[in-house]
Amino acid sequence: MTDLAAFYRGRRVMVTGGLGFIGSNLARRLVDLGADVLLVDSLIPDYGGHLFNIAGIEDRVRVNIADVRQQSTMDYLVRDREVVFSLAGQVSHIDSMRDPFTDLEINCRSQLTILEACRRFNARAKVVYAGTRQVYGKPDYLPVDERHLVRPTDVNGINKVAGEYYHLVYNNVFGVRGCSLRLTNVYGPRQLVRHNRQGFIGWFIRLVIEDREVEIFGDGSQMRDFVYVDDAAEAFLLAGASEATNGEVFNVGGDEPVSHRDLVAMLVEMAGSGRIRFVEWPAEKKAIDIGSFYSDSSKFRAATGWQPRVGLREGFGRTLAYYREHLARYLDETAPATAPPQ
Amino acid sequence: MTDLAAFYRGRRVMVTGGLGFIGSNLARRLVDLGADVLLVDSLIPDYGGHLFNIAGIEDRVRVNIADVRQQSTMDYLVRDREVVFSLAGQVSHIDSMRDPFTDLEINCRSQLTILEACRRFNARAKVVYAGTRQVYGKPDYLPVDERHLVRPTDVNGINKVAGEYYHLVYNNVFGVRGCSLRLTNVYGPRQLVRHNRQGFIGWFIRLVIEDREVEIFGDGSQMRDFVYVDDAAEAFLLAGASEATNGEVFNVGGDEPVSHRDLVAMLVEMAGSGRIRFVEWPAEKKAIDIGSFYSDSSKFRAATGWQPRVGLREGFGRTLAYYREHLARYLDETAPATAPPQ
Repeated sequence: MTDLAAFYRGRRVMVTGGLGFIGSNLARRLVDLGADVLLVDSLIPDYGGHLFNIAGIEDRVRVNIADVRQQSTMDYLVRDREVVFSLAGQVSHIDSMRDPFTDLEINCRSQLTILEACRRFNARAKVVYAGTRQVYGKPDYLPVDERHLVRPTDVNGINKVAGEYYHLVYNNVFGVRGCSLRLTNVYGPRQLVRHNRQGFIGWFIRLVIEDREVEIFGDGSQMRDFVYVDDAAEAFLLAGASEATNGEVFNVGGDEPVSHRDLVAMLVEMAGSGRIRFVEWPAEKKAIDIGSFYSDSSKFRAATGWQPRVGLREGFGRTLAYYREHLARYLDETAPATAPPQ
Repeated sequence: MTDLAAFYRGRRVMVTGGLGFIGSNLARRLVDLGADVLLVDSLIPDYGGHLFNIAGIEDRVRVNIADVRQQSTMDYLVRDREVVFSLAGQVSHIDSMRDPFTDLEINCRSQLTILEACRRFNARAKVVYAGTRQVYGKPDYLPVDERHLVRPTDVNGINKVAGEYYHLVYNNVFGVRGCSLRLTNVYGPRQLVRHNRQGFIGWFIRLVIEDREVEIFGDGSQMRDFVYVDDAAEAFLLAGASEATNGEVFNVGGDEPVSHRDLVAMLVEMAGSGRIRFVEWPAEKKAIDIGSFYSDSSKFRAATGWQPRVGLREGFGRTLAYYREHLARYLDETAPATAPPQ
């Protein structure tokens, strides 16, 4: 197993989407490990970036507000970075179908922008890309491994897989080392909960905390696997520190698949608030539903020694506790840039 | 088997890239079938579009010079079209690595432009997309069928597969019927032979006709399959006329795989000119070489009844004859817009 402390101490890293959900949690780990951390984020409203996410570590990171689509900015920012964690993205599948071009610009084209910056100005950087299990679409078999066909069911999934493939080609042809982690459903503190267009978990957590009704489509029997955000951050750290990951894609998922129904029941029970309501599938959602999905992460475990450490109950317990304390921060789009007392 | 004459008679079709290699050959078939043919082409130098390609049918088609990247143009042009053959593209893999953004704009983004035009202004159109076997990359097994993983080895392959996936999503989610034909090596009259950045066949044919040396990398043992352009055009016609193709991808390849070495030997023998020279693999080409490749087209045959009718010797015979007569036209970038006497 890689000695992360030894690898990251003093290491110059960059996290795009560094004020977002996974990016900010990754930043916290990097700060703890003693890395030289540059966070890049454009703070596009509704995407999840939020200065409160780095409350408590503001003085130990450098924040550069910028858009990954802007070439000269990226050319400059990557210059001295040894590891680039490429997490900036448009996450909403719904938004991608309403405005496919913006999704293309952010999820597909910007990856070329970052990779070209590396190729021309810092070809020794290692780039770790945040991929998604959405690239698989409706699975042919479960659990899904990396041999499964890529068959995205929405524009976001297509642009994400194109962004991923660029990393492999730049690795193989230009020697800009890169890999992709196809994340399943990541959850935890600092997740966007203000709207429900970035997936269901954050939204469910908010509804439960607000003692509201959680709508489950159909009978809620579809299975999903979940990764607690600290485990996801650990996956990025390991991928960035390993040469065995170069040019490869990896599933990064949880090992306790659970149905929507059981998940929400657990949240309601743990929170002591909220309730389930079963409703018919809305037609437009049914059209892009993929049924059950959970992934096999054994390739990544074998390559890096990663394993998820935080079980579902523990992870959701921490998440509920976080949002009980800070929910208001995540509902207010004009949240202040300074951190509250810790 | 579909009655193509009955289907296409009077049918309003559009061919993007209609002055290019496959587009212009398809246009000829469509004219023969009595279709109402609109050809759209931007005539970008070096891409293959050429007014001489429609010599003899100029009066039976409508030509609209335009770029598929331009949204309002596409919005207007698709309005009354029943079948859209989407062949406009940047074909050079080499160019895609030198200028990945232009490749992205033309091969990936423009597909969204066309599909959005259809979705908003003509959702009843059927769109047939020219995909490529390049999306498979280096094959795990031969012949390659559609269950093979998509693993492009260059930027062009990535953008082409993203363009392809958009068609499937727009079919499944928005009901804009679409499919993709993953073409292998298409050859025949009206192919670009002016430079060698669009693949080797046209270039080899030119060298042989000019009695020059054909360089073969390594021992030339890598296998390829070939489709004569009339068979490729027939595949587009069948795909456009069939409902069984909606939402699907299909390999369209030849059934006589042949090695580079044997192919060139055949060309030299048939032409009575040119010669082979074996050379070392250039390092940058070796880096993206995929070894042998040939595809299994049985899915497309089963769906549409298609089968290639023109064998290798016959096809290359026709091609050599065409370029013996017209080579000068294809070497002159400033070729006149009017056709010569037939």
